[in-house]
Amino acid sequence: MGLIVQKYGGSSVADIEKIKFVARKVVETKRKGNKVVVVVSAMGKTTDNLINLAKQINPTPPERELDLLLSTGEMVSVALLCIAIETLGEEAEGFPGYFAGIKTDSFHTKARIQRIEPGRIIEELNRDKIVVVAGFQGLSPENLITTLGRGGSDLTAIAIAAAIKADICEIYTDVEGVFTSDPNKIPEAKLIPSISYDELLELASTGAKVMQSRAVEFAKKYSVSFVVKSTFKEGEGTMVKELEVKEGAVVSAVSIDENQAKITIFGVPDKPGIAGKIFSSLGKENINVDMIVQNTGKDNRADLSFTVNINDMEKALKITEKVAEEIGAEKVNGDADICKLSIIGVGMMNHPGVAGRMFTALAEAGINIEMISTSEIKISCVIRKKDGEKALKKVHQEFIEKRG
Amino acid sequence: MGLIVQKYGGSSVADIEKIKFVARKVVETKRKGNKVVVVVSAMGKTTDNLINLAKQINPTPPERELDLLLSTGEMVSVALLCIAIETLGEEAEGFPGYFAGIKTDSFHTKARIQRIEPGRIIEELNRDKIVVVAGFQGLSPENLITTLGRGGSDLTAIAIAAAIKADICEIYTDVEGVFTSDPNKIPEAKLIPSISYDELLELASTGAKVMQSRAVEFAKKYSVSFVVKSTFKEGEGTMVKELEVKEGAVVSAVSIDENQAKITIFGVPDKPGIAGKIFSSLGKENINVDMIVQNTGKDNRADLSFTVNINDMEKALKITEKVAEEIGAEKVNGDADICKLSIIGVGMMNHPGVAGRMFTALAEAGINIEMISTSEIKISCVIRKKDGEKALKKVHQEFIEKRG
Repeated sequence: MGLIVQKYGGSSVADIEKIKFVARKVVETKRKGNKVVVVVSAMGKTTDNLINLAKQINPTPPERELDLLLSTGEMVSVALLCIAIETLGEEAEGFPGYFAGIKTDSFHTKARIQRIEPGRIIEELNRDKIVVVAGFQGLSPENLITTLGRGGSDLTAIAIAAAIKADICEIYTDVEGVFTSDPNKIPEAKLIPSISYDELLELASTGAKVMQSRAVEFAKKYSVSFVVKSTFKEGEGTMVKELEVKEGAVVSAVSIDENQAKITIFGVPDKPGIAGKIFSSLGKENINVDMIVQNTGKDNRADLSFTVNINDMEKALKITEKVAEEIGAEKVNGDADICKLSIIGVGMMNHPGVAGRMFTALAEAGINIEMISTSEIKISCVIRKKDGEKALKKVHQEFIEKRG
Repeated sequence: MGLIVQKYGGSSVADIEKIKFVARKVVETKRKGNKVVVVVSAMGKTTDNLINLAKQINPTPPERELDLLLSTGEMVSVALLCIAIETLGEEAEGFPGYFAGIKTDSFHTKARIQRIEPGRIIEELNRDKIVVVAGFQGLSPENLITTLGRGGSDLTAIAIAAAIKADICEIYTDVEGVFTSDPNKIPEAKLIPSISYDELLELASTGAKVMQSRAVEFAKKYSVSFVVKSTFKEGEGTMVKELEVKEGAVVSAVSIDENQAKITIFGVPDKPGIAGKIFSSLGKENINVDMIVQNTGKDNRADLSFTVNINDMEKALKITEKVAEEIGAEKVNGDADICKLSIIGVGMMNHPGVAGRMFTALAEAGINIEMISTSEIKISCVIRKKDGEKALKKVHQEFIEKRG
């Protein structure tokens, strides 16, 4: 007997049969004696289709109206899931975002939750109802519908779990949980039974996107434990909770990001303020820079390399070339034939030599490392794209398979 | 310079090109110096599609949830129309039903408007914005979304026009207005420039459905003049306003309803309470009875005939047979090969002999009349279905074409 928040993503409610399946799961949970709040996303590709409609009118549609448009997607899911639950004999209460007490700021299409007023949700739970909430949406101080940005339904679920002090928050999705590496590339990859918020956040930054980072950050801030598991396959999933340094497992996961490009500025004058100039120019254009490495060179000049998303490369190159000219750098080079290999694990904080083991493993496989970047619980290396898969296998073997 | 409410139905906003067209019309109206409130229906077949989704889960879906589901259809139209209007350079404010101040009772899927609180609409008009309101929906005292039943968007438009004291309410649709008869059947049919509420109501009851009767009744009650006109064709349309007895035009329109069936009970004992028993049994099963005719017969027994919608005939027959047995009537007969021909006109109140002219015209065409029913401004005759088209032509000639 507990208070449970369950979140079902778009692929879990993509059609009527799946909605019925989800309804059975929800009702089953309720009949085990639990109080259940369900958060749902829009069905399948609904959100994309709605955006597409709006863009047929205006390629950059006004954001307030776009939010009103997009919010209908989750409302349809809420209504249909309620119908399916009631058809199974349980009472359901549907909450569109404007009634669920999710108060946000006024930044349409990427609003931030300011507070949750869960009074009505708790009231309906106490009336023995299953509460179904539209994910991804809230209400601005101006009483307009806002949306929370991509993946916002995860955030809705975790925020409600925090507000009603749920015993557990279950994030149902189309994967069975978090794996030690991409099972499509590494057949030996294993499900990770439990992982810390920080590890999951670092994983997201390495290209292995399981959940929206904002949702994980929110969970961390309010200490909401949650489980990531599959809607349609049985299994325990991956528990995400407060950081704990584990015995044994030094590295939790190995991931590869093939959507990175490297930009190098050669012969940068080694003066204060130069790096700031470069990266604030990129920031102004909304280009996210990931790794940054600078080598001091001869004659007070340095080579500066950084990585950006491959889709931003052309734009980033243009900006960088302009800045390079202004600061008197020698030349700029763009390279899309790279990838980023990362290992993540809270264990590595207490285990010196992890980096050395990674570099040695790569050297044994004859793979050259072009850039290195480290955090407390992550080590990333930029290597040639063609070496990516071989490197992933080798490093997964070294850190995950050997320990088994 | 005026205060105008415009309503666009589902076929007027069926796709993106049509929504852009409507936006241009709205913006044009605004730029002529008017304040404009626009009421929109769901795009094309959206409502039917949503109902179909719900029925895939449950053939009789719970009504509260069905309302939440259906309400999303108009919200999509509101959002897209706002985007289209803003793209043309005017400011728009979209009002989903839950914000528009349309307060209804709690009868989900067929809620009645209790009052309109137009404060926010007026506020936004005074800010020089075009206000776009979701038709067909309101908010119950329990703060749940309700819908007003089929054709409810007309009602929304007229109720708002009444509440904000609009100068005119324009109902845009896929026909050019109200005609003297169905132009598909009578090429000589002409557009009626103006018609009274009562005539339009009687027309609806004769099978010539232009608008939901509830909307017309509401308009009559609050003296809201409105125009029915085409979205895509230029034209003045038909003005609907307070009854006025016109000179000249005795009959405004001639219509035929081919979806009627006749049920006759022979040998009904002529005692008080018998008719009540029959029609309350039908009413309990939600069967609408249209015309009722009783002939006194011999031996204190009468023959009683009435018409129902052809889709209800089987059900009505079963009920009637049961009651006939109870009351000791002789037999029951059902007949689907009939149709109902009607003439409507406020002028006939002051012109005796209209009925005689109609019957004579039918007799000249060799058409037998089986039932007759009259009101102050309408005369209806039941005739054989095969005679319908000939009768329609003849009577339209007699009353409409001759006067021209």
